[in-house]
Amino acid sequence: MIKDKLKKLRESMENKGICAYIIPSADFHQSEYVGDYFKCRQFISGFTGSAGTVVVTLDEAGLWTDGRYFIQAEEQLKDSTIKLFKMGEEGVPTIEQYLDSVLNDGDTLAFDGRTISAKEGYGYEKEYSHKNVKIVYEYDLIDELWEDRPNMSEEKAFLLDVKYAGESAEDKLSKVRQIMKKQNATIHILNSLDDIAWLFNIRGNDINCTPVVLSSAFITLDKVYYFIDQNKLTHEIKDKFNQIGIEIKDYFEIYDFIKEIKENEVVLLDGAKVNYSIYKNINSNVSVIDAPNPTFIFKAIKNEVELQNTRDCHIKDGVAMTKFMYWLKTNIGKIKITEMSASDKLEKLRRSDKDCFDLSFDTISGYKGHAAMMHYKATEESDYELKQEGMLLVDSGGQYFTGTTDITRTYILGDITEEQRLHYTSVLRGMIRLSKAKFLYGCRGLNLDILARGPLWDLGIDYKCGTGHGVAFVSNVHEGPNGFRWKIVPERNDSCVLEEGMVTTNEPGVYIEGSHGIRIENELICHRGQKVGLDQFMEFETITFAPIDLDGVNPEYMEKSEIEWLNNYHKQVFEKISPYLNEEEVDWLREYTRAI
Amino acid sequence: MIKDKLKKLRESMENKGICAYIIPSADFHQSEYVGDYFKCRQFISGFTGSAGTVVVTLDEAGLWTDGRYFIQAEEQLKDSTIKLFKMGEEGVPTIEQYLDSVLNDGDTLAFDGRTISAKEGYGYEKEYSHKNVKIVYEYDLIDELWEDRPNMSEEKAFLLDVKYAGESAEDKLSKVRQIMKKQNATIHILNSLDDIAWLFNIRGNDINCTPVVLSSAFITLDKVYYFIDQNKLTHEIKDKFNQIGIEIKDYFEIYDFIKEIKENEVVLLDGAKVNYSIYKNINSNVSVIDAPNPTFIFKAIKNEVELQNTRDCHIKDGVAMTKFMYWLKTNIGKIKITEMSASDKLEKLRRSDKDCFDLSFDTISGYKGHAAMMHYKATEESDYELKQEGMLLVDSGGQYFTGTTDITRTYILGDITEEQRLHYTSVLRGMIRLSKAKFLYGCRGLNLDILARGPLWDLGIDYKCGTGHGVAFVSNVHEGPNGFRWKIVPERNDSCVLEEGMVTTNEPGVYIEGSHGIRIENELICHRGQKVGLDQFMEFETITFAPIDLDGVNPEYMEKSEIEWLNNYHKQVFEKISPYLNEEEVDWLREYTRAI
Repeated sequence: MIKDKLKKLRESMENKGICAYIIPSADFHQSEYVGDYFKCRQFISGFTGSAGTVVVTLDEAGLWTDGRYFIQAEEQLKDSTIKLFKMGEEGVPTIEQYLDSVLNDGDTLAFDGRTISAKEGYGYEKEYSHKNVKIVYEYDLIDELWEDRPNMSEEKAFLLDVKYAGESAEDKLSKVRQIMKKQNATIHILNSLDDIAWLFNIRGNDINCTPVVLSSAFITLDKVYYFIDQNKLTHEIKDKFNQIGIEIKDYFEIYDFIKEIKENEVVLLDGAKVNYSIYKNINSNVSVIDAPNPTFIFKAIKNEVELQNTRDCHIKDGVAMTKFMYWLKTNIGKIKITEMSASDKLEKLRRSDKDCFDLSFDTISGYKGHAAMMHYKATEESDYELKQEGMLLVDSGGQYFTGTTDITRTYILGDITEEQRLHYTSVLRGMIRLSKAKFLYGCRGLNLDILARGPLWDLGIDYKCGTGHGVAFVSNVHEGPNGFRWKIVPERNDSCVLEEGMVTTNEPGVYIEGSHGIRIENELICHRGQKVGLDQFMEFETITFAPIDLDGVNPEYMEKSEIEWLNNYHKQVFEKISPYLNEEEVDWLREYTRAI
Repeated sequence: MIKDKLKKLRESMENKGICAYIIPSADFHQSEYVGDYFKCRQFISGFTGSAGTVVVTLDEAGLWTDGRYFIQAEEQLKDSTIKLFKMGEEGVPTIEQYLDSVLNDGDTLAFDGRTISAKEGYGYEKEYSHKNVKIVYEYDLIDELWEDRPNMSEEKAFLLDVKYAGESAEDKLSKVRQIMKKQNATIHILNSLDDIAWLFNIRGNDINCTPVVLSSAFITLDKVYYFIDQNKLTHEIKDKFNQIGIEIKDYFEIYDFIKEIKENEVVLLDGAKVNYSIYKNINSNVSVIDAPNPTFIFKAIKNEVELQNTRDCHIKDGVAMTKFMYWLKTNIGKIKITEMSASDKLEKLRRSDKDCFDLSFDTISGYKGHAAMMHYKATEESDYELKQEGMLLVDSGGQYFTGTTDITRTYILGDITEEQRLHYTSVLRGMIRLSKAKFLYGCRGLNLDILARGPLWDLGIDYKCGTGHGVAFVSNVHEGPNGFRWKIVPERNDSCVLEEGMVTTNEPGVYIEGSHGIRIENELICHRGQKVGLDQFMEFETITFAPIDLDGVNPEYMEKSEIEWLNNYHKQVFEKISPYLNEEEVDWLREYTRAI
């Protein structure tokens, strides 16, 4: 099956004189998650992980993916003739190195330019220019093979009212235009869906768990051309957009539209967020400023209305999480519960609030060793039945009209070992230490990360990911430029100075392969604290409220101030959540939020 | 007096067509501290601070200095006609900006090129090239005016035996040459005195408290030309140097010598550590690689012999510090003690060890409000008498044949306020938290700094300096590239990845103007800790052993693990120091190292 597809692809490559063809996991907007229409890499390889890139040459094929997916990929690639390249492992070439080894002078490298960022694209140009490698980006060769390719999403879009968004699209546009003027740009091309959603207060349902709309925007100093499947738009949206100078054009029209940009214009775009086809279709005589989208930082700094809405939705979310915990802890050992049935139960509880219209990502519900896989997703085959022992890690979140949530709790279902209790308490300590940090304005996540990681580093344990990521407002559950990690990873772009109004997760963890996984995650709003002379101090407000399972905590392992923080936190959880519970749940919650 | 000097300088400037003349606080080696011969800036301005630069134009003169010296400079510049430019204050132009405002097209800017780093020099070249400003660097105009200029130091040099240095000059040279080869360099010019001291295992006494030797080195792949006042060298040194291919030349000869470098040579030098005259005297057709001196990192990573020697000298130093504390605490209120007499007493105790041949910097002995000045130096006029109240901060160190020390203790002389006790305990907590850090290899000081600063930030207090600096071996008390600070300061070059064998101070503090200053400082050796899978953990070994005054500590403010660390530390202090004390001192030490 896969072999057949590869054969047809190679025929097509040969016809066009292509020596190597790259198929990434990407839509035309460099989105983290993509709609079914865009799952070309999955189609050609059979590998279903969320991250991975296939490179096909005339006689070889390889899949590059990261540590999360080594086991899964190995299984799914069996009999496919596609070789697995384990990214980051010693001696494993990167895609760039591999291509360098297979491309000869004058060869042609190809990909669908809409699925590769401009930055990657001109990276390839530069990398292989000494070999005179020709780069062809005009063909989607998979489309020709994919007979039953799903349609592109046709879900309706909707506007987020100013009462939710806190700022009108007009006002946001005028802020963006100020930056354009400052940079002497006359045109700004915006192609990343979360930026577009924020700027125009528009949302949709084109990507699983991510309420964004497939579209592109071309912004001048007095007009906007908005490229979208017009069927997605209601009359109300069209009228509104018309009023504020937004002209609607067809989704695919942008590629030709930008060919007409005149030489005296100056285009501002973010090469990492605009695709290579867009970049290449701009006349090469036009000046291009490759700089971050102005919306990138505006979006990350939430306004007061967004923050208040976010706080509200976290209470709703906390109610669902608390009811779920009550159900789980009181039913375990009595009724049959599996990883999947538990996550179904939680989804139902979450969606029972009228404001919750989706999850914010696929729930991770991992029991025992499964929880050691950071991005585990239970399937019919893997689904564990939960016993009255060990731990269940549940990482989940909701999309509400009032915000996006992301929370992890790890539940103790019965006996655990003292080592597990030490791990659990240490993860909690790290989470607490970061929560209560006070720091000078100017600090980045990398200055604070050791607060969360320290108690685990003391045990000789590290987790192989950041400690936290930015969360967008009714949009992507992952956003930059804020985050917590100890080492800058340039392509992540998540190590900015922490600004007032940014929302970041705080989620240290322990992952012991084959044994257990523990993660405890709250979300934090960054605020200005006291100002002493010229020193502006900053601090965090925790906005996630759901009990942290005390059955995993040994207070002996904790510092005085950490216990104090935990008791105070649980007091708040009880105050904020108990009004929404029935009597039995309240009694139970009182016990589970007791001071220790 | 100053006015007369300025008048003569301006005459000399006019004769040579110079519009602006820069006089920094520098010797010809970009040393942090300089010998008397080099104190041109002090001569021309009357300002005696350790840092500051004077710029003289035909009708104006200005002194640029930093916050440490604003009050002192203001006083010393009275009636000098020299204007004080307070660096870092809002609206105060930098030297570069000032020069830009006074230099017109075609003007001539001058300085003694030996007192300006190559990097600064070509910075000026670039900055004013659009104005066709001519840069003249050949004249030392101050020398012409300075009739009773002190001689350059004529102190003898000595060799540091391999039993102290742990590695022969031959072996060090061969490591340097390996780096030269890797960088395709055929010549390496080394002009920084601490690098030279390390490389050739040579020491001297040419700078106050810093046992280095005024000299320069020209290193080829098989020979070394060493430029030094030959009178400094004993026969033994000359013989030794002769044996290992080091040819001695006169100190000033280097400037002509390098003019002869042939065009096919490739010169490796560090533009920040070589002076502008050296840089300019290299034929412009010669390739120059501007990169860190290979010795910079070699020197910072101490070998096992250096580390063992350093540990040993810290015990000697701890004995002096403990005897001093005993004397101070048991005599306060009984005999007259002043800031200066206290520091004299300490110096005597330190020097009573035969291995101690100098202090490592001028002792800071600050009582009450004086201690709030980080770099306070008591003078006859300022000298406070110590009373049985308040706190005395003593920051001091010694130069031993076995190493260089730097230690601060703050002593409680009687009543202090509860706020002071909170400050004292918080400084101690920060010092402890950093001491016991465990972290992954790859961390820099900026990842760890919050451990030291956190307890103070929690109180809304910051200290306006790094938390710690590297310490050289029988050499500069300040060295890079290691250090602790939360924000990178590029010109400091002290934010490298922490490597095994680096020695760094750990010295958080509180400075309340006019009231009190608290600093507690130990030195740390960085070591590899456990390796878990591919994760290499790192940790610190504390090598400073002297009691931390428990009279300032309120255990109520401390975390459990911090108290544990302190008790364990004091136990070690008693074990290591008590064998060198008399009976009374031992009894006293037992009390002052008790578990709390």
